[in-house]
Amino acid sequence: MTTQVNLLLTGDELMNGDVIDTNSVMFAEHLSDIGLTIRKKVTIADDLSLLQAEIVQLSQSADVLIINGGLGPTVDDLTSQALALACGVELELNPHAHLHLKNWAERRKTQLNKPNLKQAYLPIGCDIIANETGSAVGFSYQLNHCLILCTPGVPSELTHMLKDEIIPKLKALFPIINKHKMTRMQTFGLGESTLQALINDKIPTWPTEITIGFRAAMPMLEVKLSVSCAKGHSILANWENKLSLLLGDHVLAIGKSNKITIAEYILPLLTESQQKITVAESCTGGLIASQITAIPGSSAVFEAGFVTYSNNMKQKLLDVPAQTLINHGAVSKETVLAMAKGALAKSSADFVIAVSGIAGPDGGTKDKPVGSVWIAWGNKQSLQAKYYCIPVARQYFQQIVTARSLDLVRRMLINSEESPYYNRIN
Amino acid sequence: MTTQVNLLLTGDELMNGDVIDTNSVMFAEHLSDIGLTIRKKVTIADDLSLLQAEIVQLSQSADVLIINGGLGPTVDDLTSQALALACGVELELNPHAHLHLKNWAERRKTQLNKPNLKQAYLPIGCDIIANETGSAVGFSYQLNHCLILCTPGVPSELTHMLKDEIIPKLKALFPIINKHKMTRMQTFGLGESTLQALINDKIPTWPTEITIGFRAAMPMLEVKLSVSCAKGHSILANWENKLSLLLGDHVLAIGKSNKITIAEYILPLLTESQQKITVAESCTGGLIASQITAIPGSSAVFEAGFVTYSNNMKQKLLDVPAQTLINHGAVSKETVLAMAKGALAKSSADFVIAVSGIAGPDGGTKDKPVGSVWIAWGNKQSLQAKYYCIPVARQYFQQIVTARSLDLVRRMLINSEESPYYNRIN
Repeated sequence: MTTQVNLLLTGDELMNGDVIDTNSVMFAEHLSDIGLTIRKKVTIADDLSLLQAEIVQLSQSADVLIINGGLGPTVDDLTSQALALACGVELELNPHAHLHLKNWAERRKTQLNKPNLKQAYLPIGCDIIANETGSAVGFSYQLNHCLILCTPGVPSELTHMLKDEIIPKLKALFPIINKHKMTRMQTFGLGESTLQALINDKIPTWPTEITIGFRAAMPMLEVKLSVSCAKGHSILANWENKLSLLLGDHVLAIGKSNKITIAEYILPLLTESQQKITVAESCTGGLIASQITAIPGSSAVFEAGFVTYSNNMKQKLLDVPAQTLINHGAVSKETVLAMAKGALAKSSADFVIAVSGIAGPDGGTKDKPVGSVWIAWGNKQSLQAKYYCIPVARQYFQQIVTARSLDLVRRMLINSEESPYYNRIN
Repeated sequence: MTTQVNLLLTGDELMNGDVIDTNSVMFAEHLSDIGLTIRKKVTIADDLSLLQAEIVQLSQSADVLIINGGLGPTVDDLTSQALALACGVELELNPHAHLHLKNWAERRKTQLNKPNLKQAYLPIGCDIIANETGSAVGFSYQLNHCLILCTPGVPSELTHMLKDEIIPKLKALFPIINKHKMTRMQTFGLGESTLQALINDKIPTWPTEITIGFRAAMPMLEVKLSVSCAKGHSILANWENKLSLLLGDHVLAIGKSNKITIAEYILPLLTESQQKITVAESCTGGLIASQITAIPGSSAVFEAGFVTYSNNMKQKLLDVPAQTLINHGAVSKETVLAMAKGALAKSSADFVIAVSGIAGPDGGTKDKPVGSVWIAWGNKQSLQAKYYCIPVARQYFQQIVTARSLDLVRRMLINSEESPYYNRIN
């Protein structure tokens, strides 16, 4: 028997399209880490009788029912009331929740008002789930065979509560779920089908006990290996290692990572070696610079970037020779190498990226179709340039060129000797 | 009696966190345009018996049940089969769906294979809903009092089907919904509570027949006015006009707009007047340039941008006098004005934006806390600079500074005489 989990989300903003539901993804990821899947997810507006009826119904078909949202201070926050009705108990001023609220107000040097106090009225007999960051505590109630967990809708509060309270609680309650284990690998430059074909080809003996899953996290691809039996457990580390060797420097991190751009992987490498990077951007138009400077502390490794969109500006700001542009065009090896040299000279940086391409939708020719791009990268000692064709929509093209050029620098910084196997679309 | 709509979403990828559900938002927005709200939304994995049971149950509590997903060619696409079971009918090779598939394959110069053909097996007695772009048609079935509509999970296919087929069908079937009307206004620079307070203050006689709603679409805020009675209808245009006058140049567009950055509002204004813009960015680190160049055709108005992150580069690339930096610091009126002048001179552009601020999390002082920013904007004839304090997380700060500085240029381009009433957090 597997443990069944239902999820009930509440909030008018989830029904009228004002808010995209990202909490579900958070629940799914945390639960899958301990081998649980969500059986059914119901979303309804802030409506007391609908909520009560759903709680009753969803609690009958699961071992765990997680309710998300409706813990706030306003009249449309109804979770506590609906749960009390569903369980046939009264609300009371819960002393733990009251103390939590008083402390919360004290830290903010404010007085508790009546709406605030509403958050401390909870069903008689419930247990408190700590909320480190918000005003409303979570709470749980055992209704017949179902454990009901009420959680906050605010994503930052939910993150903490899931990690620190809910997941440990579930692991303790349902030891069976410890049978499941998952490891994750963050990769760049390989698509799902390429990766699958590579495994089929190079590791044909891949064991049936280890399931491979993928999660697209543009521009990265997360590879998930999961096992749920004793044999799977015993061989997981070994095969994770084999896969990691096969994928080589396409692997950015083993384990979960909250880095969402390649720039975040480069910054510590540059900081450590006290080196600086500059960029000369044509088709990416500032996106590479902006991904670098989005990271706190980037001023230690980045002083200047050049967005040279026109030929004229490539000459004027980066000293690209007019003859180079006339002979080879703006999208050429010669031009990106000249841009790279110019940017290094003007900025005194150690590393450089220069890109020039055709982002589209117009501007392509037969020889240089939309999606063509030349990327130059390196330092004063060693500059290289490569051509790629990435025929996708304009902004997607800009994202991929940005990630790929940063990845080329990352590989240089880790002295990678392998040639990246970038697929057409990441 | 209002028309009740339930929504059933299916797909393993929606349950395991691999995909964020954005289709719901699309349904909610299109339905709200014709005055319908979704009563209950259920999401389940690709599981035949769960699907069948949910279809039966959800069809009993609504006039319309929309099913989304599960129309594809693979074995885990189960909608057609589950609907047939729920309705107690058989599947048959539907001639319309078959013809659609044959045409679809012909356009692609491919042969139909067996999995493809699966998409033409539909419940006996169903009606076809055209799918202009994809291989799978939609279909509808009347089960007792509930109209069941099966729609594709691929967002681009769903968009077309909703607009061209589903919404017109619902409007024809439920004339009552024509009683509802909604108009939208895209605004920038005012937060929800500021806007509400402004209305309370300046239009205290706001009629009860017109409901005001808001939808945060960072960095914009959409204001929604909806009416559902005859009186509301007759006065809507008049009050929309009053509100628009009150909000002045904070209004970017009246009606729905798919523009998501302020740069998209500026580009046509610059193109029309054949003027160019340049940017000198410190704290936004390339984000302003990248938002401009994300737009097709931006090369007509943008030739060069300068990312000058260090003091040294502000001097070297933009000729900011060393004495200015020493006397006033990098985050000062004098520095951003010098950056703006330098960028104009080096790029020969007509308009300029220059920004310098403290994005955080570190680097703040008592006089210039984290969130401080100076923005300069204008042309050779008229340069202005303003100080703002936007104490929010680093990347959010960069987004707001980018939007605000572009909005200042937009106001200059439309000869706005009003002073923008930017609130602390947009």
